[in-house]
Amino acid sequence: MENSLNLREDLLETIENKNVSHLKELFDTIPTIDLAEALDGVDDARLLIYIFRVISKDYTGDFFTDLSAEQQEHIISAFSDKDLIELLENSFADDIVDTIEEMPANVVNRILRVAPSDLRKDINTLLNYKDNTAGSIMTTEYIEMHEDILVRDAIASIRKNGREAETVYTIFVRDAKRTLVGTINLDDLIFASEEDTLETIMDKDFITCNANDDQEEVANMFKRYDLNAMAVVNNEKKILGIITIDDVVDIIVQEANEDIANLNQVSAIEEPYLKTSVWKLVKKCLPWIMILMILQIGSAAITSAFDGLIASFAVLAVFSPLILDAGGNSGGQTTTMIVRSLALNEFKKGDFKKVIWKEFRVALIIAGIIGVFAVALTFSEMAIGVVSIDNSSFNENPWLVRFLVSLLVGSTLMVTMIISRMIGCLLPFFAKKIHVDPAVMCGPFTTTVVDIVSLLTYFLIWQELFYPLIF
Amino acid sequence: MENSLNLREDLLETIENKNVSHLKELFDTIPTIDLAEALDGVDDARLLIYIFRVISKDYTGDFFTDLSAEQQEHIISAFSDKDLIELLENSFADDIVDTIEEMPANVVNRILRVAPSDLRKDINTLLNYKDNTAGSIMTTEYIEMHEDILVRDAIASIRKNGREAETVYTIFVRDAKRTLVGTINLDDLIFASEEDTLETIMDKDFITCNANDDQEEVANMFKRYDLNAMAVVNNEKKILGIITIDDVVDIIVQEANEDIANLNQVSAIEEPYLKTSVWKLVKKCLPWIMILMILQIGSAAITSAFDGLIASFAVLAVFSPLILDAGGNSGGQTTTMIVRSLALNEFKKGDFKKVIWKEFRVALIIAGIIGVFAVALTFSEMAIGVVSIDNSSFNENPWLVRFLVSLLVGSTLMVTMIISRMIGCLLPFFAKKIHVDPAVMCGPFTTTVVDIVSLLTYFLIWQELFYPLIF
Repeated sequence: MENSLNLREDLLETIENKNVSHLKELFDTIPTIDLAEALDGVDDARLLIYIFRVISKDYTGDFFTDLSAEQQEHIISAFSDKDLIELLENSFADDIVDTIEEMPANVVNRILRVAPSDLRKDINTLLNYKDNTAGSIMTTEYIEMHEDILVRDAIASIRKNGREAETVYTIFVRDAKRTLVGTINLDDLIFASEEDTLETIMDKDFITCNANDDQEEVANMFKRYDLNAMAVVNNEKKILGIITIDDVVDIIVQEANEDIANLNQVSAIEEPYLKTSVWKLVKKCLPWIMILMILQIGSAAITSAFDGLIASFAVLAVFSPLILDAGGNSGGQTTTMIVRSLALNEFKKGDFKKVIWKEFRVALIIAGIIGVFAVALTFSEMAIGVVSIDNSSFNENPWLVRFLVSLLVGSTLMVTMIISRMIGCLLPFFAKKIHVDPAVMCGPFTTTVVDIVSLLTYFLIWQELFYPLIF
Repeated sequence: MENSLNLREDLLETIENKNVSHLKELFDTIPTIDLAEALDGVDDARLLIYIFRVISKDYTGDFFTDLSAEQQEHIISAFSDKDLIELLENSFADDIVDTIEEMPANVVNRILRVAPSDLRKDINTLLNYKDNTAGSIMTTEYIEMHEDILVRDAIASIRKNGREAETVYTIFVRDAKRTLVGTINLDDLIFASEEDTLETIMDKDFITCNANDDQEEVANMFKRYDLNAMAVVNNEKKILGIITIDDVVDIIVQEANEDIANLNQVSAIEEPYLKTSVWKLVKKCLPWIMILMILQIGSAAITSAFDGLIASFAVLAVFSPLILDAGGNSGGQTTTMIVRSLALNEFKKGDFKKVIWKEFRVALIIAGIIGVFAVALTFSEMAIGVVSIDNSSFNENPWLVRFLVSLLVGSTLMVTMIISRMIGCLLPFFAKKIHVDPAVMCGPFTTTVVDIVSLLTYFLIWQELFYPLIF
């Protein structure tokens, strides 16, 4: 990475001097993504096209995919139909679809017009699946063979046609009705006796998914079963396409990014930070802050309702943020753990009760410890004078008042800890039940409810229990 | 998954009736992890060992890995040395190391005693690497061949010895000095002419890592270069082991979990939620809440220092939580985005300034909009009476007071938005520089600083600017 500046100069100079052999050498020894990144921002179509003319066809598909959308557009516009057809033939249908999704309509039309008819059909099929489904990430180039074929013939056929498949490491086996009946790993095929039929060596414990399955579920299956490729099938168990592990790695990162963003009140970010514009960043952050400000009307109203209490005893206002923050943090902790476990599909049917019971016990223990800790902490703060009670209208017995205040904070926090954890753990399940992304609304909603309950507890304990003790 | 109860009954009944053919059929048609999960909690060593006796050796290694640590311990204790050796021979060194790390010392000693000497050497090597490094996740079973070997001989050799490697999909090519000089994908080997040498067909643009590299960096390289396997080399470019994509998938999930947990003030969780004990959950959450409570002493002290102001005008206490929360949220948004981008290695050297400049512009825009929004929101809250100013000592011109209060909240929030985003974005870079996990301490630290600055701004604007306007 440190050398990317030198690499850029090297590349540009090499192209300038038309040093074909060195350019070829660069593509042979350096991954295409590093080369594409070194050319970041280079928009001279003539220059980019020169590269495509010179380098081996083995690299054109990947190199094109690694360029930026702007560069891809320049290249397609400058390419002749013949060049474009050649490029499409060296790319996989799913990569082409990814490219198409970022192109203006006229470029898309041109790609579809020049694409060979079978590729066009594949592209159109893939374009029809909804975002974030198995169908949207699958590819239509895979190896499917009849179960009666001999190992020898299978290997010969892969040698002949395998280049066009996205993976040859998993071979999908079908019966006479075109139903998927097994999978074979390439190494098992190589190790098998040449005279065996595929049926005798295939794995029957294969995993499939449906085209409408959520991509997150698909990723969880890859992880659980250590898969390299998975077939996407229709209801008759006929293959529609396959998903490969390299796409799944991207999905896992993307889904984690979404959870991380949503749990921290940022709208999910798809591009890298530096490629996101200032206005897009504003749009991702601003609405959340506004929503949270509006949601706070409830707690503002409650505090205002007790403003007489505060005016007579301002120390109440000193400790209310402590309670609000601790409640928000505690609820957020539970929500985070539950949301993540739901995303990773850790819970089975019936686990809901186990989770509630576990959280209830955790909440009781934390409430007990935090209650005592809060009494000690707030009493110390007042004892050493960091927080004063001077401005209150009852200073006759300051140590009793200090003790009662710390007891107030401690007992309120016990209530806060219990309800924040219970709501923080119930809400994600509820969100999932009503098909809302649990990561999105749980945090703000939990905080709002916990804030209101905590403040009510805080002011009412003081007004009804402790205040009468002093007067 | 819905059928796991039936599967459990089926399995137990099959074993009870010693129905060997049905048990074999179950293992042939159902992934081992589903079978292992169906037997969750079954600790009868006799029963588990019966399974190992009956099923094909193809499944024993995986099935053993998929069982719980308790079940693994029961089995090892009940196994004869001969059984144990056979099990070890059907497992990969890295899986054995994972198992060993959860076993008591006497079990570990027994495994090391019975392991064949070369396997023992591998296990000891792997056990010596620090957690979370490339060395700790690599395996020592891979295929390495000399560059002069012919394709025909290479394929023959894989057929003969490939079974023992963790992956045969990537072949590592070395020269006479045992230096890694290239890699070959299995499909390229199969497609190549039988008389070629490996040197002529190998890829020279391969990627390697060092044994001490952080596993997160390794995962980022797999993602960037779409790798299936990567060699771990020493300083002389000799292979020490390899890392395969299935282990990387687990790392990506684990690292994302860590970021998610740390960003939301939970200590990172390694086990699934339901397998984590109540006390462990308490330990993961409680310290954070306590630390955050202690960190709040600063803002409590500031609020207390202005308690005279609050006593005379309680509405100040109504809006201070709004400011504290908005600051915390806004700083958290920035920190989240920067921490995640750092984790995914999105930034190059020199990008730091670009990030600061971008954040500064985002902060200015958000500050402007939130400032105006806050004035409108808080003024409305007071105008419709959700928040009252009745309990203040100056009610002669209530609309001027309401306007000044909303102006106070708005102008404070403008300051808050700018400093929260700037600190929220600077801190992660600083944490990385001093080699502290950016996800861990940035949130609490940002909040603490922002709270103090915001409250000071809030009270001082009122005391020095607006209060004099009324009196």
